[in-house]
Amino acid sequence: MKGPRGTQDLLPGVTEKWQYVEEKLKDLSSRYNYHEIRTPIFEHTELFQRGVGDTTDIVQKEMYTFTDKGDRSITLRPEGTASVVRSFVQHKLFGSPNQPTKLFYIGPMFRYERPQQGRMRQFVQFGVEALGSEDPAIDAEVISLAMNAYKELGLQSLKLVINSLGDKESRDNHRQALIDHFTPVKEELCGDCQSRLDKNPLRILDCKKDRDHEAMQTAPSILEYLNEYSSSYFEQVKAYLDVMGISYVVDKNLVRGLDYYNHTAFEIMSDAEGFGAITTLSGGGRYNGLVQDLGGPETPGIGFALSIERLLMALEAENIELPIDQRLDCYVVALGDEAKIQAASIVEQLRLSGMKVDKDYQDKKMKAQFKAADRLKARFVLVLGEEEIANDLIAVKNMESGEQENIVLEQLVSYLKGII
Amino acid sequence: MKGPRGTQDLLPGVTEKWQYVEEKLKDLSSRYNYHEIRTPIFEHTELFQRGVGDTTDIVQKEMYTFTDKGDRSITLRPEGTASVVRSFVQHKLFGSPNQPTKLFYIGPMFRYERPQQGRMRQFVQFGVEALGSEDPAIDAEVISLAMNAYKELGLQSLKLVINSLGDKESRDNHRQALIDHFTPVKEELCGDCQSRLDKNPLRILDCKKDRDHEAMQTAPSILEYLNEYSSSYFEQVKAYLDVMGISYVVDKNLVRGLDYYNHTAFEIMSDAEGFGAITTLSGGGRYNGLVQDLGGPETPGIGFALSIERLLMALEAENIELPIDQRLDCYVVALGDEAKIQAASIVEQLRLSGMKVDKDYQDKKMKAQFKAADRLKARFVLVLGEEEIANDLIAVKNMESGEQENIVLEQLVSYLKGII
Repeated sequence: MKGPRGTQDLLPGVTEKWQYVEEKLKDLSSRYNYHEIRTPIFEHTELFQRGVGDTTDIVQKEMYTFTDKGDRSITLRPEGTASVVRSFVQHKLFGSPNQPTKLFYIGPMFRYERPQQGRMRQFVQFGVEALGSEDPAIDAEVISLAMNAYKELGLQSLKLVINSLGDKESRDNHRQALIDHFTPVKEELCGDCQSRLDKNPLRILDCKKDRDHEAMQTAPSILEYLNEYSSSYFEQVKAYLDVMGISYVVDKNLVRGLDYYNHTAFEIMSDAEGFGAITTLSGGGRYNGLVQDLGGPETPGIGFALSIERLLMALEAENIELPIDQRLDCYVVALGDEAKIQAASIVEQLRLSGMKVDKDYQDKKMKAQFKAADRLKARFVLVLGEEEIANDLIAVKNMESGEQENIVLEQLVSYLKGII
Repeated sequence: MKGPRGTQDLLPGVTEKWQYVEEKLKDLSSRYNYHEIRTPIFEHTELFQRGVGDTTDIVQKEMYTFTDKGDRSITLRPEGTASVVRSFVQHKLFGSPNQPTKLFYIGPMFRYERPQQGRMRQFVQFGVEALGSEDPAIDAEVISLAMNAYKELGLQSLKLVINSLGDKESRDNHRQALIDHFTPVKEELCGDCQSRLDKNPLRILDCKKDRDHEAMQTAPSILEYLNEYSSSYFEQVKAYLDVMGISYVVDKNLVRGLDYYNHTAFEIMSDAEGFGAITTLSGGGRYNGLVQDLGGPETPGIGFALSIERLLMALEAENIELPIDQRLDCYVVALGDEAKIQAASIVEQLRLSGMKVDKDYQDKKMKAQFKAADRLKARFVLVLGEEEIANDLIAVKNMESGEQENIVLEQLVSYLKGII
């Protein structure tokens, strides 16, 4: 039997990297004063229809939707923001005195897509959401956190792209300009774009099929339609990034795939040679209408999400080795029935005193036990034979130096604690 | 909108406890040389039918099963062992030189049950599996790890119950004895037990409805039917527990709810007063046939799983406070437009140097900023006003001692690193 298509098992040797990266992300979040929130793996389907947007590919094509035994339509979450905002509203987090509410999440998401390198049907996202502030400084804070998630792991081939999608007035004006611009060539666009022209013309700029159409190159940019407030907001975000020492380029064609964004939008890409082509690692942006759309009070918000799978691919593309210590502290070699019983007690004591310890569980001969200790990279091998037992001793061999000493059993824990 | 029935959101204030407990469990596993494995959230339904057992309540009544867009029957995992064994077989982990294969997992599981205190439809299990050893010492190791998961968090009202379910020969003999015993009173048993009598009579002993039936008290115990090998195996497990200093009681009526167990079975319970009644916290046992049932080579196995929700309830029942530090290192108070910009740069530097730092993002007045610093338990408040900016200084106030010093901006990071 195999696991389902588009999913993967993470095995020992790989999970240690995940643990390392996740710890790093949690630590980083904590330094920025973001706190963890955990929402369920599945939600009512309606949440994503309302919160991600009915016209998005995610909702139209990619959701794992099913009916539970209580006849409710349930969907495995395809992204994190809608659930976090639903939870923010449900538990009235907007009522807490500590505002903005700064949250992070990390966990599996699900999209039914054609599996390919770096795109699985189950994948893990880390993301943050800051709800309750419309201060350009917090846009810069979120971007800083996203960039430092990569930088602190050692990545260097990073490119930060930012844009502004403006406020409602700016977007409405731009929308009309897009309709005016594309309507004359409507028949030349792909079917998806023809229907986008009515529903959500901004997303035409995101189309891969029509990318090379002449009208795409000359399409009106949102930046030309920003009103004064939006324009000033964007200038301030850039000023904060400058003073924080974060480099960026403005790309007026950057529009994010989800419907709910406004003002600041950003993506982080890697141009590491190992990737072949430039690759998007993560993205995010401001979504001032979403909390209200999901039944809460008017509350501005901004967030971003990154894929852990892609982050690990980027580390590989840049040949970065994570500093993971796989060594065992001690391996206990036991010879004879009495020694085996004693060894179990010794192993127990050492583990409880904080050491990483193992022994044989397959009735291996002495030589094979030493080999096992070697493979497990044990720093010390402790040997317990009949003679040692008779004298209440245990032989301690330092595998690095090759030195060996006999230690009184009773003093073993304190002896080892002194040298490990 | 609300989250689905039987699920919960874990919010800041609570997630810190989960993080603490999970870190502890990962650290404990690592000291026992168990390595993490992560399997998908959903699997082909057939896996659980074969791996958990067609006659179990889990498979018959409680699974979240649905059809994906590719017309495959998919089920959200109701427990962890079947997936781990599937992965062990699929990736041929039995071929690694390091045997037994010692794995742990931690993650959400799903059962469609009536939600109640301590029983959610989505819940989190931590578990370990040791595959490839039939040494009584490893049974004791797994039990030790399970017990120490609770003990190291400070729990004291623990009760370890063990039993042996014997090998196939012993079980077959016992099975026949159960059929002979219950057949005369079949009509007096509940409907479920009547059908269990044919399919899996052992599980009659687990029935809550028929618990008080006279025939239950006099039912033949598996311990009377253990053959020599099974009996000796059980004696050795107990001898190991004794030498490791782990107390237990033998309960001949302990039979686990899943079909695949043999030999050692155990449960850990809490009799903390806060619970009202004695409560099962976790359980596990040996399953020597499961790897073969799922298409792998004959491989003995043993494991256990615990619910994090119940573990946290047990901590509450014993009034144990986890040592979680929620304090912020610094809060930066900025007064005036120029100070706001500077503050963003200072906050960035301090965070990158390892400190937990925050500032205002809501244009608050000075007094409100100090209040926010207080609520966030900031150890130091850094004040940046026009005068400080003009002199390249920042005021550092120690909130514990009340002392305040002006520090040259350039030396701020090293100054704070010296005192935090």
